[in-house]
Amino acid sequence: METETATRWLTDAEQCAWRTYLDVTRLLTYQLERDLQPFGLTINDYEILVNLSESADLRMRMSDLASATLQSKSRLSHQITRMENAGLVRRENCESDRRGLFAVLTDHGMETMRKVAPHHVESVRQHFIDLLSPEALVDLRASLTPVAEHLRGRRGKV
Amino acid sequence: METETATRWLTDAEQCAWRTYLDVTRLLTYQLERDLQPFGLTINDYEILVNLSESADLRMRMSDLASATLQSKSRLSHQITRMENAGLVRRENCESDRRGLFAVLTDHGMETMRKVAPHHVESVRQHFIDLLSPEALVDLRASLTPVAEHLRGRRGKV
Repeated sequence: METETATRWLTDAEQCAWRTYLDVTRLLTYQLERDLQPFGLTINDYEILVNLSESADLRMRMSDLASATLQSKSRLSHQITRMENAGLVRRENCESDRRGLFAVLTDHGMETMRKVAPHHVESVRQHFIDLLSPEALVDLRASLTPVAEHLRGRRGKV
Repeated sequence: METETATRWLTDAEQCAWRTYLDVTRLLTYQLERDLQPFGLTINDYEILVNLSESADLRMRMSDLASATLQSKSRLSHQITRMENAGLVRRENCESDRRGLFAVLTDHGMETMRKVAPHHVESVRQHFIDLLSPEALVDLRASLTPVAEHLRGRRGKV
Protein backbone atom coordinates (compact mmCIF):
# COMPACT_ATOMS: atom_id res chain seq x y z
CA MET A 1 0.00 0.00 0.00
CA GLU A 2 1.42 3.36 -1.06
CA THR A 3 1.17 5.82 1.80
CA GLU A 4 3.77 8.38 0.77
CA THR A 5 2.68 11.42 -1.16
CA ALA A 6 3.81 11.02 -4.74
CA THR A 7 6.70 13.30 -5.65
CA ARG A 8 5.66 16.05 -8.01
CA TRP A 9 8.70 15.88 -10.29
CA LEU A 10 9.24 18.87 -12.56
CA THR A 11 7.66 18.76 -16.00
CA ASP A 12 9.96 19.22 -18.99
CA ALA A 13 8.97 22.87 -19.30
CA GLU A 14 9.56 23.49 -15.60
CA GLN A 15 12.86 21.62 -15.71
CA CYS A 16 14.03 23.71 -18.67
CA ALA A 17 13.11 26.99 -16.99
CA TRP A 18 14.73 25.94 -13.72
CA ARG A 19 17.90 24.71 -15.41
CA THR A 20 18.24 27.93 -17.40
CA TYR A 21 17.68 30.05 -14.32
CA LEU A 22 20.31 28.04 -12.37
CA ASP A 23 22.84 28.24 -15.19
CA VAL A 24 22.43 32.00 -15.54
CA THR A 25 22.80 32.44 -11.80
CA ARG A 26 26.07 30.51 -11.71
CA LEU A 27 27.54 31.82 -14.93
CA LEU A 28 26.69 35.39 -14.05
CA THR A 29 28.24 35.15 -10.59
CA TYR A 30 31.36 33.73 -12.20
CA GLN A 31 31.53 36.52 -14.80
CA LEU A 32 30.82 39.37 -12.39
CA GLU A 33 33.47 38.01 -9.98
CA ARG A 34 35.95 37.82 -12.82
CA ASP A 35 35.27 41.44 -13.79
CA LEU A 36 35.79 42.54 -10.18
CA GLN A 37 39.03 40.60 -9.74
CA PRO A 38 41.34 43.33 -11.14
CA PHE A 39 40.10 45.53 -8.30
CA GLY A 40 40.78 42.86 -5.69
CA LEU A 41 37.10 42.62 -4.77
CA THR A 42 34.64 39.75 -4.62
CA ILE A 43 30.93 40.23 -5.29
CA ASN A 44 30.29 40.02 -1.58
CA ASP A 45 32.88 42.72 -0.93
CA TYR A 46 31.21 44.94 -3.50
CA GLU A 47 27.80 44.35 -1.95
CA ILE A 48 29.17 45.37 1.47
CA LEU A 49 30.63 48.56 0.00
CA VAL A 50 27.30 49.39 -1.66
CA ASN A 51 25.36 48.83 1.55
CA LEU A 52 27.72 50.94 3.65
CA SER A 53 27.98 53.75 1.08
CA GLU A 54 24.18 54.08 1.02
CA SER A 55 23.84 54.15 4.82
CA ALA A 56 23.63 57.16 7.09
CA ASP A 57 27.13 58.09 8.31
CA LEU A 58 28.51 55.33 6.05
CA ARG A 59 28.11 52.77 8.81
CA MET A 60 25.89 49.83 9.67
CA ARG A 61 25.46 47.63 12.69
CA MET A 62 27.07 44.26 11.93
CA SER A 63 23.81 42.39 12.54
CA ASP A 64 21.94 44.68 10.13
CA LEU A 65 24.66 44.26 7.54
CA ALA A 66 24.40 40.48 7.90
CA SER A 67 20.63 40.67 7.30
CA ALA A 68 20.99 43.06 4.38
CA THR A 69 23.54 40.86 2.63
CA LEU A 70 21.86 37.59 3.63
CA GLN A 71 24.95 36.21 5.34
CA SER A 72 25.45 34.54 8.68
CA LYS A 73 27.09 36.78 11.29
CA SER A 74 30.14 34.54 11.52
CA ARG A 75 30.70 34.53 7.79
CA LEU A 76 30.24 38.29 7.62
CA SER A 77 32.72 38.69 10.46
CA HIS A 78 35.41 36.84 8.50
CA GLN A 79 34.67 38.93 5.46
CA ILE A 80 34.83 42.21 7.36
CA THR A 81 38.21 41.13 8.77
CA ARG A 82 39.54 40.64 5.24
CA MET A 83 38.11 43.98 4.13
CA GLU A 84 39.53 45.65 7.24
CA ASN A 85 42.97 44.30 6.34
CA ALA A 86 42.52 45.79 2.86
CA GLY A 87 41.70 49.16 4.45
CA LEU A 88 38.18 49.28 2.97
CA VAL A 89 36.22 49.24 6.22
CA ARG A 90 36.87 49.44 9.93
CA ARG A 91 35.04 48.06 12.94
CA GLU A 92 33.81 50.50 15.54
CA ASN A 93 32.21 50.00 18.91
CA CYS A 94 29.40 52.35 19.75
CA GLU A 95 29.75 53.32 23.41
CA SER A 96 26.18 54.53 23.76
CA ASP A 97 24.70 51.45 22.14
CA ARG A 98 25.29 48.15 23.87
CA ARG A 99 24.11 46.16 20.87
CA GLY A 100 26.53 47.89 18.73
CA LEU A 101 29.50 46.68 16.82
CA PHE A 102 29.50 48.66 13.59
CA ALA A 103 31.20 48.31 10.23
CA VAL A 104 32.25 51.71 8.88
CA LEU A 105 33.28 52.58 5.33
CA THR A 106 36.76 54.16 5.25
CA ASP A 107 37.83 56.93 2.86
CA HIS A 108 39.75 54.31 0.93
CA GLY A 109 36.61 52.14 0.83
CA MET A 110 34.56 55.03 -0.56
CA GLU A 111 37.25 55.87 -3.08
CA THR A 112 37.39 52.21 -4.17
CA MET A 113 33.62 52.09 -4.48
CA ARG A 114 33.61 55.23 -6.69
CA LYS A 115 36.33 53.79 -8.89
CA VAL A 116 34.80 50.33 -9.26
CA ALA A 117 31.10 51.22 -9.61
CA PRO A 118 31.23 52.34 -13.28
CA HIS A 119 33.06 49.15 -14.25
CA HIS A 120 30.66 46.97 -12.29
CA VAL A 121 27.61 48.66 -13.84
CA GLU A 122 29.11 48.14 -17.27
CA SER A 123 29.65 44.49 -16.43
CA VAL A 124 26.04 44.09 -15.20
CA ARG A 125 24.82 45.76 -18.42
CA GLN A 126 26.98 43.75 -20.75
CA HIS A 127 26.27 40.37 -19.20
CA PHE A 128 22.65 40.77 -18.14
CA ILE A 129 20.62 43.97 -18.46
CA ASP A 130 21.43 44.85 -22.08
CA LEU A 131 20.65 41.27 -23.16
CA LEU A 132 17.03 41.65 -22.07
CA SER A 133 14.42 43.87 -23.72
CA PRO A 134 12.76 46.54 -21.56
CA GLU A 135 9.57 44.43 -21.67
CA ALA A 136 11.46 41.33 -20.56
CA LEU A 137 12.92 43.27 -17.63
CA VAL A 138 9.46 44.42 -16.56
CA ASP A 139 8.15 40.85 -16.83
CA LEU A 140 11.16 39.47 -14.95
CA ARG A 141 10.61 41.86 -12.11
CA ALA A 142 6.87 41.12 -12.02
CA SER A 143 7.50 37.36 -11.99
CA LEU A 144 10.23 37.38 -9.38
CA THR A 145 8.76 39.91 -6.95
CA PRO A 146 6.32 37.39 -5.38
CA VAL A 147 9.19 34.89 -5.13
CA ALA A 148 11.35 37.45 -3.32
CA GLU A 149 8.47 38.29 -0.97
CA HIS A 150 7.77 34.65 -0.23
CA LEU A 151 11.44 33.98 0.51
CA ARG A 152 11.86 37.09 2.61
CA GLY A 153 8.89 35.98 4.69
CA ARG A 154 10.46 32.54 5.18
CA ARG A 155 13.81 33.96 6.14
CA GLY A 156 12.46 35.42 9.37
CA LYS A 157 11.34 31.98 10.55
CA VAL A 158 13.74 29.57 12.21
CA MET B 1 37.55 68.31 -21.12
CA GLU B 2 35.65 65.09 -20.56
CA THR B 3 37.38 62.25 -22.35
CA GLU B 4 36.00 59.27 -20.45
CA THR B 5 32.96 57.50 -21.78
CA ALA B 6 30.01 58.43 -19.60
CA THR B 7 28.88 55.62 -17.36
CA ARG B 8 25.53 54.22 -18.41
CA TRP B 9 24.04 53.91 -14.91
CA LEU B 10 20.98 51.70 -14.60
CA THR B 11 17.59 53.35 -15.02
CA ASP B 12 15.09 52.96 -12.19
CA ALA B 13 13.31 50.14 -14.04
CA GLU B 14 16.58 48.35 -14.74
CA GLN B 15 17.74 48.83 -11.17
CA CYS B 16 14.47 47.38 -9.84
CA ALA B 17 14.65 44.33 -12.07
CA TRP B 18 18.32 43.75 -11.26
CA ARG B 19 17.77 44.18 -7.51
CA THR B 20 14.82 41.75 -7.55
CA TYR B 21 16.80 39.20 -9.54
CA LEU B 22 19.77 39.48 -7.15
CA ASP B 23 17.57 39.19 -4.07
CA VAL B 24 15.80 36.09 -5.39
CA THR B 25 19.14 34.50 -6.27
CA ARG B 26 20.50 35.01 -2.77
CA LEU B 27 17.34 34.22 -0.85
CA LEU B 28 16.70 31.11 -2.90
CA THR B 29 20.22 29.78 -2.42
CA TYR B 30 19.83 30.36 1.30
CA GLN B 31 16.46 28.56 1.41
CA LEU B 32 17.52 25.60 -0.73
CA GLU B 33 20.68 25.18 1.37
CA ARG B 34 18.59 25.24 4.51
CA ASP B 35 16.27 22.55 3.15
CA LEU B 36 19.26 20.36 2.27
CA GLN B 37 20.94 20.77 5.66
CA PRO B 38 19.07 17.90 7.39
CA PHE B 39 20.67 15.61 4.82
CA GLY B 40 24.14 16.97 5.43
CA LEU B 41 24.40 18.28 1.88
CA THR B 42 25.15 21.69 0.41
CA ILE B 43 23.70 22.81 -2.93
CA ASN B 44 27.07 22.17 -4.53
CA ASP B 45 27.14 18.63 -3.12
CA TYR B 46 23.68 18.01 -4.53
CA GLU B 47 24.72 19.33 -7.93
CA ILE B 48 27.70 16.96 -7.96
CA LEU B 49 25.47 14.02 -7.09
CA VAL B 50 23.05 14.96 -9.91
CA ASN B 51 25.85 15.24 -12.44
CA LEU B 52 27.41 11.92 -11.50
CA SER B 53 24.09 10.08 -11.30
CA GLU B 54 23.25 11.20 -14.85
CA SER B 55 26.64 10.17 -16.27
CA ALA B 56 27.57 6.92 -17.98
CA ASP B 57 28.96 4.48 -15.38
CA LEU B 58 28.14 7.05 -12.72
CA ARG B 59 31.53 8.69 -13.14
CA MET B 60 33.01 11.87 -14.58
CA ARG B 61 36.50 13.11 -15.24
CA MET B 62 37.30 15.73 -12.57
CA SER B 63 37.99 18.39 -15.21
CA ASP B 64 34.60 17.75 -16.87
CA LEU B 65 32.87 17.87 -13.51
CA ALA B 66 34.55 21.20 -12.79
CA SER B 67 33.26 22.57 -16.12
CA ALA B 68 29.77 21.16 -15.61
CA THR B 69 29.43 22.67 -12.16
CA LEU B 70 31.24 25.90 -13.06
CA GLN B 71 33.85 25.52 -10.35
CA SER B 72 37.60 25.86 -10.37
CA LYS B 73 39.45 22.55 -10.26
CA SER B 74 41.02 23.34 -6.92
CA ARG B 75 37.72 24.21 -5.33
CA LEU B 76 36.11 21.10 -6.76
CA SER B 77 38.98 19.02 -5.42
CA HIS B 78 38.34 20.26 -1.88
CA GLN B 79 34.66 19.54 -2.27
CA ILE B 80 35.25 16.03 -3.58
CA THR B 81 37.51 15.35 -0.60
CA ARG B 82 34.70 16.32 1.77
CA MET B 83 32.23 14.18 -0.16
CA GLU B 84 34.70 11.31 -0.23
CA ASN B 85 34.98 11.51 3.56
CA ALA B 86 31.19 11.33 3.73
CA GLY B 87 31.27 8.20 1.57
CA LEU B 88 29.24 9.78 -1.25
CA VAL B 89 31.87 9.60 -3.97
CA ARG B 90 35.32 8.13 -4.50
CA ARG B 91 38.24 9.16 -6.66
CA GLU B 92 39.50 6.71 -9.21
CA ASN B 93 42.50 6.76 -11.52
CA CYS B 94 41.92 5.46 -14.98
CA GLU B 95 44.99 3.42 -15.97
CA SER B 96 44.22 3.55 -19.67
CA ASP B 97 43.62 7.29 -19.69
CA ARG B 98 46.49 9.51 -18.72
CA ARG B 99 44.26 12.56 -18.44
CA GLY B 100 42.12 10.78 -16.07
CA LEU B 101 41.33 11.30 -12.47
CA PHE B 102 37.64 10.48 -12.10
CA ALA B 103 35.00 11.11 -9.46
CA VAL B 104 32.71 8.11 -9.08
CA LEU B 105 29.34 7.97 -7.36
CA THR B 106 29.30 5.32 -4.60
CA ASP B 107 26.29 3.16 -3.70
CA HIS B 108 25.82 5.33 -0.65
CA GLY B 109 25.97 8.41 -2.88
CA MET B 110 23.29 7.00 -5.17
CA GLU B 111 21.15 6.01 -2.22
CA THR B 112 21.51 9.49 -0.74
CA MET B 113 20.60 11.07 -4.07
CA ARG B 114 17.43 8.93 -4.33
CA LYS B 115 16.43 9.82 -0.79
CA VAL B 116 17.09 13.54 -1.10
CA ALA B 117 15.78 14.20 -4.63
CA PRO B 118 12.05 14.19 -3.76
CA HIS B 119 12.66 16.64 -0.91
CA HIS B 120 14.80 18.89 -3.05
CA VAL B 121 12.23 18.94 -5.86
CA GLU B 122 9.55 19.83 -3.35
CA SER B 123 11.76 22.63 -2.07
CA VAL B 124 12.37 23.95 -5.61
CA ARG B 125 8.60 23.82 -6.27
CA GLN B 126 7.58 25.48 -3.04
CA HIS B 127 10.10 28.30 -3.20
CA PHE B 128 10.28 28.97 -6.92
CA ILE B 129 8.46 26.96 -9.58
CA ASP B 130 4.99 26.91 -8.05
CA LEU B 131 5.14 30.66 -7.43
CA LEU B 132 5.38 31.35 -11.16
CA SER B 133 2.60 30.79 -13.70
CA PRO B 134 3.31 28.42 -16.61
CA GLU B 135 3.41 31.47 -18.90
CA ALA B 136 5.89 33.23 -16.61
CA LEU B 137 8.12 30.13 -16.67
CA VAL B 138 8.07 30.09 -20.47
CA ASP B 139 8.89 33.80 -20.57
CA LEU B 140 11.63 33.39 -17.99
CA ARG B 141 13.27 30.67 -19.98
CA ALA B 142 12.98 32.66 -23.21
CA SER B 143 14.47 35.76 -21.59
CA LEU B 144 17.33 34.00 -19.85
CA THR B 145 18.38 31.61 -22.61
CA PRO B 146 20.30 34.28 -24.58
CA VAL B 147 21.94 35.40 -21.34
CA ALA B 148 23.05 31.83 -20.61
CA GLU B 149 24.39 31.47 -24.15
CA HIS B 150 26.26 34.75 -23.99
CA LEU B 151 27.83 33.80 -20.65
CA ARG B 152 28.69 30.28 -21.75
CA GLY B 153 30.47 31.75 -24.76
CA ARG B 154 32.44 34.09 -22.51
CA ARG B 155 33.41 31.36 -20.10
CA GLY B 156 35.61 29.63 -22.65
CA LYS B 157 37.71 32.77 -23.12
CA VAL B 158 40.52 33.61 -20.72
